[in-house]
Amino acid sequence: MHDSAGLLDLLRAVAEGRVAPALAAERLGPSVAEFPFATVDLDREARCGFPEVVFGQGKSPAETAAIAARIFAHSGRVLVTRASPPAFAAVQAAIPSAVYFERARVIRVGHRPEDGVGLVAVVSAGTADLPVSEEAALTAEALGANVDRITDVGVAGLHRILAATPRLRAAHAVVVCAGMEGALPSVVGGLVAAPVVAVPTSVGYGANFGGLAALLGMLNSCAANVATVNIDNGFGAGYQAALINRLAVGAGRPT
Amino acid sequence: MHDSAGLLDLLRAVAEGRVAPALAAERLGPSVAEFPFATVDLDREARCGFPEVVFGQGKSPAETAAIAARIFAHSGRVLVTRASPPAFAAVQAAIPSAVYFERARVIRVGHRPEDGVGLVAVVSAGTADLPVSEEAALTAEALGANVDRITDVGVAGLHRILAATPRLRAAHAVVVCAGMEGALPSVVGGLVAAPVVAVPTSVGYGANFGGLAALLGMLNSCAANVATVNIDNGFGAGYQAALINRLAVGAGRPT
Amino acid sequence: MHDSAGLLDLLRAVAEGRVAPALAAERLGPSVAEFPFATVDLDREARCGFPEVVFGQGKSPAETAAIAARIFAHSGRVLVTRASPPAFAAVQAAIPSAVYFERARVIRVGHRPEDGVGLVAVVSAGTADLPVSEEAALTAEALGANVDRITDVGVAGLHRILAATPRLRAAHAVVVCAGMEGALPSVVGGLVAAPVVAVPTSVGYGANFGGLAALLGMLNSCAANVATVNIDNGFGAGYQAALINRLAVGAGRPT
Amino acid sequence: MHDSAGLLDLLRAVAEGRVAPALAAERLGPSVAEFPFATVDLDREARCGFPEVVFGQGKSPAETAAIAARIFAHSGRVLVTRASPPAFAAVQAAIPSAVYFERARVIRVGHRPEDGVGLVAVVSAGTADLPVSEEAALTAEALGANVDRITDVGVAGLHRILAATPRLRAAHAVVVCAGMEGALPSVVGGLVAAPVVAVPTSVGYGANFGGLAALLGMLNSCAANVATVNIDNGFGAGYQAALINRLAVGAGRPT
Amino acid sequence: MHDSAGLLDLLRAVAEGRVAPALAAERLGPSVAEFPFATVDLDREARCGFPEVVFGQGKSPAETAAIAARIFAHSGRVLVTRASPPAFAAVQAAIPSAVYFERARVIRVGHRPEDGVGLVAVVSAGTADLPVSEEAALTAEALGANVDRITDVGVAGLHRILAATPRLRAAHAVVVCAGMEGALPSVVGGLVAAPVVAVPTSVGYGANFGGLAALLGMLNSCAANVATVNIDNGFGAGYQAALINRLAVGAGRPT
Amino acid sequence: MHDSAGLLDLLRAVAEGRVAPALAAERLGPSVAEFPFATVDLDREARCGFPEVVFGQGKSPAETAAIAARIFAHSGRVLVTRASPPAFAAVQAAIPSAVYFERARVIRVGHRPEDGVGLVAVVSAGTADLPVSEEAALTAEALGANVDRITDVGVAGLHRILAATPRLRAAHAVVVCAGMEGALPSVVGGLVAAPVVAVPTSVGYGANFGGLAALLGMLNSCAANVATVNIDNGFGAGYQAALINRLAVGAGRPT
Amino acid sequence: MHDSAGLLDLLRAVAEGRVAPALAAERLGPSVAEFPFATVDLDREARCGFPEVVFGQGKSPAETAAIAARIFAHSGRVLVTRASPPAFAAVQAAIPSAVYFERARVIRVGHRPEDGVGLVAVVSAGTADLPVSEEAALTAEALGANVDRITDVGVAGLHRILAATPRLRAAHAVVVCAGMEGALPSVVGGLVAAPVVAVPTSVGYGANFGGLAALLGMLNSCAANVATVNIDNGFGAGYQAALINRLAVGAGRPT
Amino acid sequence: MHDSAGLLDLLRAVAEGRVAPALAAERLGPSVAEFPFATVDLDREARCGFPEVVFGQGKSPAETAAIAARIFAHSGRVLVTRASPPAFAAVQAAIPSAVYFERARVIRVGHRPEDGVGLVAVVSAGTADLPVSEEAALTAEALGANVDRITDVGVAGLHRILAATPRLRAAHAVVVCAGMEGALPSVVGGLVAAPVVAVPTSVGYGANFGGLAALLGMLNSCAANVATVNIDNGFGAGYQAALINRLAVGAGRPT
Repeated sequence: MHDSAGLLDLLRAVAEGRVAPALAAERLGPSVAEFPFATVDLDREARCGFPEVVFGQGKSPAETAAIAARIFAHSGRVLVTRASPPAFAAVQAAIPSAVYFERARVIRVGHRPEDGVGLVAVVSAGTADLPVSEEAALTAEALGANVDRITDVGVAGLHRILAATPRLRAAHAVVVCAGMEGALPSVVGGLVAAPVVAVPTSVGYGANFGGLAALLGMLNSCAANVATVNIDNGFGAGYQAALINRLAVGAGRPT
Repeated sequence: MHDSAGLLDLLRAVAEGRVAPALAAERLGPSVAEFPFATVDLDREARCGFPEVVFGQGKSPAETAAIAARIFAHSGRVLVTRASPPAFAAVQAAIPSAVYFERARVIRVGHRPEDGVGLVAVVSAGTADLPVSEEAALTAEALGANVDRITDVGVAGLHRILAATPRLRAAHAVVVCAGMEGALPSVVGGLVAAPVVAVPTSVGYGANFGGLAALLGMLNSCAANVATVNIDNGFGAGYQAALINRLAVGAGRPT
Repeated sequence: MHDSAGLLDLLRAVAEGRVAPALAAERLGPSVAEFPFATVDLDREARCGFPEVVFGQGKSPAETAAIAARIFAHSGRVLVTRASPPAFAAVQAAIPSAVYFERARVIRVGHRPEDGVGLVAVVSAGTADLPVSEEAALTAEALGANVDRITDVGVAGLHRILAATPRLRAAHAVVVCAGMEGALPSVVGGLVAAPVVAVPTSVGYGANFGGLAALLGMLNSCAANVATVNIDNGFGAGYQAALINRLAVGAGRPT
Repeated sequence: MHDSAGLLDLLRAVAEGRVAPALAAERLGPSVAEFPFATVDLDREARCGFPEVVFGQGKSPAETAAIAARIFAHSGRVLVTRASPPAFAAVQAAIPSAVYFERARVIRVGHRPEDGVGLVAVVSAGTADLPVSEEAALTAEALGANVDRITDVGVAGLHRILAATPRLRAAHAVVVCAGMEGALPSVVGGLVAAPVVAVPTSVGYGANFGGLAALLGMLNSCAANVATVNIDNGFGAGYQAALINRLAVGAGRPT
Repeated sequence: MHDSAGLLDLLRAVAEGRVAPALAAERLGPSVAEFPFATVDLDREARCGFPEVVFGQGKSPAETAAIAARIFAHSGRVLVTRASPPAFAAVQAAIPSAVYFERARVIRVGHRPEDGVGLVAVVSAGTADLPVSEEAALTAEALGANVDRITDVGVAGLHRILAATPRLRAAHAVVVCAGMEGALPSVVGGLVAAPVVAVPTSVGYGANFGGLAALLGMLNSCAANVATVNIDNGFGAGYQAALINRLAVGAGRPT
Repeated sequence: MHDSAGLLDLLRAVAEGRVAPALAAERLGPSVAEFPFATVDLDREARCGFPEVVFGQGKSPAETAAIAARIFAHSGRVLVTRASPPAFAAVQAAIPSAVYFERARVIRVGHRPEDGVGLVAVVSAGTADLPVSEEAALTAEALGANVDRITDVGVAGLHRILAATPRLRAAHAVVVCAGMEGALPSVVGGLVAAPVVAVPTSVGYGANFGGLAALLGMLNSCAANVATVNIDNGFGAGYQAALINRLAVGAGRPT
Repeated sequence: MHDSAGLLDLLRAVAEGRVAPALAAERLGPSVAEFPFATVDLDREARCGFPEVVFGQGKSPAETAAIAARIFAHSGRVLVTRASPPAFAAVQAAIPSAVYFERARVIRVGHRPEDGVGLVAVVSAGTADLPVSEEAALTAEALGANVDRITDVGVAGLHRILAATPRLRAAHAVVVCAGMEGALPSVVGGLVAAPVVAVPTSVGYGANFGGLAALLGMLNSCAANVATVNIDNGFGAGYQAALINRLAVGAGRPT
Repeated sequence: MHDSAGLLDLLRAVAEGRVAPALAAERLGPSVAEFPFATVDLDREARCGFPEVVFGQGKSPAETAAIAARIFAHSGRVLVTRASPPAFAAVQAAIPSAVYFERARVIRVGHRPEDGVGLVAVVSAGTADLPVSEEAALTAEALGANVDRITDVGVAGLHRILAATPRLRAAHAVVVCAGMEGALPSVVGGLVAAPVVAVPTSVGYGANFGGLAALLGMLNSCAANVATVNIDNGFGAGYQAALINRLAVGAGRPT
């Protein structure tokens, strides 16, 4: 976490008494909150501009709440994904201002819409893709982006997505969520010059194989401006799009 | 190959001397040409309206030529797919009027363009899909369809396929060949009311997995009028489209 | 959705005052019904001859009912597939004449059997394939075809399918539903000259892998007149067969 | 290789001087020929009724010849599968009476046709399956069965296999080799009462995936009398069928 | 279902008045029991020596009972596999003498142990494989074989299977059921000269992938006398082993 | 390619004579260069800021050269990926200033390094990943980015990538190419706040399955700022990173 | 289970009356406890240093308890993995001192912490991996190792695992459990010189495919000191690490 | 690469003048040899007891030789795996004492057999597995182990591996290489108490799928002491076994 030139400078500063050893250790060392079941990265906000996001799946409600409360105490905001209703109940008991978005299974605390910058478009191919696209939209908002939601514009009725072209072109980054054959990101990729983050969803049946068909379709997109995240990973897509949006509005890197 | 009512009629005719036993046996029995390495179905033209097509892969040039010559002698025309140049040399030695289409690896004999009816559109997403789409087009022509070839109109530049809409809508059936993400059939399916036969091609790389990505995309198409054939199976798609075309022009079933 | 020649004509007509700008916009533009959760394509009946079909999976009963009611109001008929009993209850509350087919999970409204034309044969290999074959049959009927259902005629007892040969040969298109090894479409394909639409079902166990075995079997069919749809996609097969049937009876393309 | 009761008997015999210790060790212990690169099982003929078969793939010609010569010296016959022409040259130098079957890549020495018993039918779906079906036929003959070869009788033209029904029913065991969708074993399984050994071949293309489609088809066969061996494993199928044939003619188990 | 020579004879007999047309039709035609949901093959016992077996999965209890009762009325015995407790209740109401084997999910009626012939060994690698191995054993018994069950003798403690060698060698055919790595059939195959029918089970976890690991292991067995059936297909293995056993005791083919 | 509001405005302008019909058609219609084998999108530079890139695979050298020359004539620059040496020879004959990068199989014409803006880091895990990472780097440069190449810094010797942290943090976007387990993007994702574009490579063997292992690893990355492109798709990653870089330096959308 | 030299010695001893036949049989033969549903290997402790471990999955509570009680009676300790709460209830009824670890689904009896030797480090990437890592830790302890648990130190925040380096380096063997991309074993492998046993977990979603992504990642690790066990197989990893630990402290092989 | 306690000590030592800043930087920082195409880890020998091993695949002969020479200059020994004959020629030109093992594709320099300690057994199932098992054996020797090679002892003739039991039991660690069904490690695992490192090989055909069958078999081994490495990864297995061997003889961790 340090380069050798910078390290030498710091060590010289210590040697010359300009920097106290403890301070140097703090600057060099990690800062984490230790639980018996988790090691929370508190440096993350300083390093990446946003606190660690809690992935709710596989954690008990009590564990989720304990971690969320610790991050909230440190940062004044927190985002929990894949949160069940019981997990929300536990978080709300610890942080009364927590808000739950049931379809997206997201808990969000400390979000300030008035701080939104730029524009991220979040597109979904069908109604059944909404849980994933909402996770993406809520995440992008939590990371400071304005979001335009464009819903149910799958490729079998092209005029729907064509009609949305101006809205798509107004965005700095576009998230596209689609299941079944996952063709929508390729079509959107051809309509805009901005980066497109594609999210395959597990919507479909049969040879969809839990989202595999859509995933392969997006990875093989003939549009060059498409990158892909994991199946149903609305969070990752919203995060990536918000990072790009932040760069585009000149708020890019924290330092 | 016979229903019990018809069978009883025939047997009664035999019992009453109206039909000779040998003739009944012939009408009930199969008609094949036996080779040591192949059993060729000579009934097929009567039954299906077109003679058996020779699948060249896995056969030696000599075997291919022997089978093709036998069918040509019986029907006056023949189609060989997956034919290597040596196979063509052997066929040409046996049937001088044979024509070879190198890109599509097709040998065609006895084709009469003036007999073409109706219209089949054969669409390809990219230049590299041409071997497959040409196999489809040559097959559909061999089965009596007029063919309109629409080339290199992949979804990343939508205006190309949109510009072809009137040509697509003029066809009784549409074949769409695409590799990579295989999104083109879904888009075409939304533009036309006719049946679409989708052909995944093995064009692409990486997570394309030899055409699997395109195949899954087409099978999961959100357009309801899309059915799919095997990867790179231009022949099957051209055949299916020609059958539909024949039905549409009223020349459908042979009897 | 327009070709450049036709576009130029229309624009000239506008320029010369023969066509009002608003009318041109309407002719060029899309017609959709917007919901917060869906964008329904109302043009579809004009374009394809049948209104948009509602895919019930992944939609709440209320959403399903709202969309179905909107389409019914516009077209006087509607088809919902993958509909749960609660979804049917919601639809029935909105459209009292709705009929539910439980085994096939299909809701159908406004079907007029007396309008049926031509003939589609729907074949199933085993009893367990009936939910899929019924979805196919109900869909084909909804799209205006007469349907002949041929049940439980798998290949291990060949006489069953052989006995059905005359019924198969009477159809303009044949749907074949089979699980396990999915061999039936190849056998049927060899018995008829008409197009065969194969539907792999997820019936089976073990190395069936949820219908994959049947799917691969059908895609690799040695019969040239077989095209395939997604696993358990009775709807798509019935739709495709009905399109072919409509072409065969001369009612093919709406314009 | 010994049961505790029999073991106790043998040990008592040793204790009582009825059996010499060295003889007991020989009866209990293995008999192998050791090479630096191979450990050949010379007991196999006594144990299984046929000497170890040499699998040529992955062995150098010299290694193949050395092993084959050792088995031939011990048993007077030998079978080598997956043998390349150079491997045959090496074997022939060591055993001048060796015969090479090029299509099947089999070397056979010491075969006596006059010793053939019973009947095994070896069926192939298409011309391209012949290398595999020949490997099966040659193996079954080497193990003492009479073989009836039935060639190119795939399911798309059912009359071909139906016409062969009496020949199929005359056999004690039937080997069926097929690529593509691999439907033939199910059809044959329904026509005969004898055990069917199915061999998927890698013949085909696209979604055949090197024989996977045929393999899955055969494993999921709806005919109960079908068991399957590895893709292209003509040897295993011929071996299994010959064992069954031997049992059926009453020559079953060596002891 | 008839060869052309025999057909000609029969037709001549009809022509000469020696055989009545209706009788010829019956001899040539199929014999099935038609239900709205099923087409039951009543010829099967005559053709194959055992009536059609009812596959319970995917059928309602009422359908299962109706089919079972029809077969029982025709043949005096019936076997139902994959039968749920409700299915058994329905069958028992129709056939009071029906017996249910819960672990194996098998219903058996009309079994006569005193008719058992020969010997089939049914081996299972672990306790969790018992549902599958019991299905195999019950099936083999229903088809007339004596069965020796050898339980929990997996390869990690080799002495267990080695101790069973004499019992294995006494059998005409051996069924081996194993999950996890599926190594037991290879080991057993090396210990016996008889045919081995391998059944991969879905026992295991993780990279077992529902029995795929065991299936691939068995298909790739280095023992030549191993053939494989579908994952968890105890029925198929018991059926195949019983056929071999019947051949070995000289009761092989019905005609 | 137009929204209904803008369309109405344009049509009103035509109606009022302010815009000529031909001009409106041009503005509404597509602009393509038609070849018998390809339909080249000449609008792309205006729409996306860079001319269409030629994908060399599956095109003959002559076809590649014809397309490249057409784009070069229109735009003064061109990029060809997956170009074989013969393809380069053909392109060079048409465009003498073309430069070939053999390891990356890239042809680049008209690149002006002095126009580079911002910074993209291109990281490779091992020496064998260089063909892919070079394709990424050359593409990003062609699209106007400055590029910092960081080579052979795989995770098994962590200090190598840790030592590069300052260089990584200086970039607006980071491309990470890795084969084998594909762990490097997750590690880099944790070290930087910028978007990371991960490229799985087909480097490795065995259970790497042609890059599948690395691909799945990257899709499942626990770092939120990682998106993934197809296996070996250095082009797509360089393109995506260059788009992000352009946004970050304020040169983002062409308008 | 015996070499021919040793065998000969033993047999000579029997022949010379120095060893009784029954004793020789016992020394040569197996020692098992036979249940109708299981064959328990009681020799295992003598042979391998630890009694057979009971795999609870697929066994009824009663069967589990019967086997566990038998082993406990023989060895004074027992370990049951994959044990459900009902299985624990049954075991506890038979062995009151049994202890249940619910998260890990492990029952342990007779463990003596004071006998622990050496050190095994058990590392988990995230909170959701704890069931698997606990199974590994409890197993290693049961086999006599001291265990250091290092929790939630995934690669996206590298300082967490870097901070644990001294603890990792103190261990004789390291178990690393990780889901998602499974990158942690490669990173740990680069930090230590000891053998690393990697356990992929099924933690994750989408293209994780039930742990496949992590499994492939670990198998393709670029660190040479990493070997892998089955998905979620904490038991196997703990067992392997304990064996290595035992060797390292000089308590390696029982004889 | 440092813990915070140790870090603080070091920094205090720097602050108090006891350690020079440059020395502290050296102790904290990495030591690598930089090439344009590679970053070689020279610290590895100090850290892990053996210098970095060169993976030859994907590197040019010149690159391979340059890296090998640099490591040899630093450590006096080097190991290159997956080395082609041209790569060996290049290495030999730089290091005349280099030795090439063609079957295993290994280059080894500076090996001292007299330094071998302990014992590793390397077992191969068949002749065709020798390239992989030799890679394992040569690697284990290079890392200081004595090696016992046991060849061609596959499970279909069990007496071969049973006869080797005493040799297997004499080893501290056992490497088992097998293709096809990969059953040998499970059998060996049951015969020894030592850790077994299993190597699936790509030997086989058909449903072996390039070693996948053997890989899955080994991962699902019912023997608890088996861990697995990548397909054909003899190097990794030999490395892991040598590490265990080193621990067992008390030469375990370098510090």
